[in-house]
Amino acid sequence: MAILVTGGAGFVGLNLVEALLASGEEVVLFDRGAPPPAAERAWATQRGRLQWVAGDVLDAAALGKAFAARRIDRVLHCAAVTSGPKREASDPAGVVAVNLQGTINVLTAAREHQVRRVVYTGSGAVYGESLRRFGRIYEDNTPALPVTLYAITKFAAERIALRLKNLWGVDVVCARLGTLVGPWERDTGVRDNFGTHSQLARLALAGETAVLPPREVRRDWIYSRDVAAGLVALLEASAPRHFIYNLSSGFDWSGSVLAWCEILKDTYPRFDFRVAAADETPNIGYTDTDRFPMDVGRIEHDIGFRPRFPPQSAMADYLSWLKLNPDFWP
Amino acid sequence: MAILVTGGAGFVGLNLVEALLASGEEVVLFDRGAPPPAAERAWATQRGRLQWVAGDVLDAAALGKAFAARRIDRVLHCAAVTSGPKREASDPAGVVAVNLQGTINVLTAAREHQVRRVVYTGSGAVYGESLRRFGRIYEDNTPALPVTLYAITKFAAERIALRLKNLWGVDVVCARLGTLVGPWERDTGVRDNFGTHSQLARLALAGETAVLPPREVRRDWIYSRDVAAGLVALLEASAPRHFIYNLSSGFDWSGSVLAWCEILKDTYPRFDFRVAAADETPNIGYTDTDRFPMDVGRIEHDIGFRPRFPPQSAMADYLSWLKLNPDFWP
Repeated sequence: MAILVTGGAGFVGLNLVEALLASGEEVVLFDRGAPPPAAERAWATQRGRLQWVAGDVLDAAALGKAFAARRIDRVLHCAAVTSGPKREASDPAGVVAVNLQGTINVLTAAREHQVRRVVYTGSGAVYGESLRRFGRIYEDNTPALPVTLYAITKFAAERIALRLKNLWGVDVVCARLGTLVGPWERDTGVRDNFGTHSQLARLALAGETAVLPPREVRRDWIYSRDVAAGLVALLEASAPRHFIYNLSSGFDWSGSVLAWCEILKDTYPRFDFRVAAADETPNIGYTDTDRFPMDVGRIEHDIGFRPRFPPQSAMADYLSWLKLNPDFWP
Repeated sequence: MAILVTGGAGFVGLNLVEALLASGEEVVLFDRGAPPPAAERAWATQRGRLQWVAGDVLDAAALGKAFAARRIDRVLHCAAVTSGPKREASDPAGVVAVNLQGTINVLTAAREHQVRRVVYTGSGAVYGESLRRFGRIYEDNTPALPVTLYAITKFAAERIALRLKNLWGVDVVCARLGTLVGPWERDTGVRDNFGTHSQLARLALAGETAVLPPREVRRDWIYSRDVAAGLVALLEASAPRHFIYNLSSGFDWSGSVLAWCEILKDTYPRFDFRVAAADETPNIGYTDTDRFPMDVGRIEHDIGFRPRFPPQSAMADYLSWLKLNPDFWP
């Protein structure tokens, strides 16, 4: 029995495959692109339990090959276009296709192959306008007011998954992810918004100077390995009581960006950073503006999952990974 | 200068074309199917101002033909699949394609042709679970929790339209329609939920007996000609302050179904009706369960639009139309 990870060579996907292999699972990694060399290296001893099937979620035949590669009994559906404004203005139909038709294709295949569970990796972005309006963000009480095409399609995909769960009897559960920090973030061609901490790490490895925006954005970041652990917990939970679970750290990490800069500077002496002067353009960006934190009481209560990495541990762990992968970003 | 009505041969579309022709506008009716003979008959004297272009909103080239037929300066986008559970279970991708990719295609063409305004005909169905939960339904304060694929895609299309409005600078405004009662409802092949009043009218014309569900559903129906007038008001408003407007009667029409039965019985003596006994299956259905009414203060305040037809006038007007069109449903 194997677990299929769609978008398995993306940011969330690679963290998931890593976690699944570490716990002894068999994994089919479905993605348009190959996993990066660093992943091949990290998983060299587990190669027998991992299979990459090349393909796009829009291609039902390719998805069929993924299901034929091994007997799949559970699915983690991560494949998506993480679109920025430029792509949304130039190719809105492409974003809708991958994020919605792709999700329908995955659920269709999951139904045909009678998988035991699909976990849909949604996004806290679905709260949209509410992230700035209502205070603490709850799954039921905070309205979804998605703004970007990315967020709009992530919300629609959730609701489609819930509808098809009811119409088809497929077991689906959905996590709304916070903003990830940590290993394995890279440019896959469909990830337009690159995380702040990864931008800094890339500059540190290149020995360049980071020019930060004047003010740190208020955000409940979550360590990427915690996200993977939370998604696996949802995959394994015997009978989740709810369809939607926030999956974030649950609290504001303010200060973590400057702390990360200090850590990087200690390790990579050629790296430096400063906050942009009034007339200066930052070379580091935030993917979004301030957010209220997502409440994570539900996933803790129902599933027994709690993130393990507070900011300091997350940074230390990320740094260890960076040291092992100095050539991760070409 | 002409107005394009996509889905112009559907329920909302025919009411719109009727209203636009009556006020002297030129109209391009874009639809996969032709308008029904009754419409051709009703509009015979206005034929010079109306042009039907056959096509699907998924077909960008066909849409191009519609824009080439006359110089289009405003668009009413009504084309959609009004899907029921059977279609949603068997062809979810088709619903998503028409309702979302179709909307993107229409907005793309509108942008290319620099139209002055697009009115997107959304649906009160986007409130979904909230229609049964929160009391009176407001545009901003009531969360959208769409349940069916129809409602999910109508909500996503709204949000996509708002996003593209901001990215592209296209002038779009959106109405969330209540449940329509009135002339021109028919089976277009993409309308799975047929309105209760039309079901009754069809039985009346056929001289059959209606067996009603045990309890009338609580709902703020709106007369279809009021919907058309409201949409035209949104098309013409100089600068709507909001993006979303509820467009419904604003109050519960309870009792109107039985009243309509009485009116039909008076006019069509072969028609009869009764409420289903405990062991009897009704042959009349409601498209949905009870709903709280949508508040319509915003459209009245901003646009100056108020529905003209209370239930009694709506029924009388619908009856006059029926008498003119005894062969409307083949």
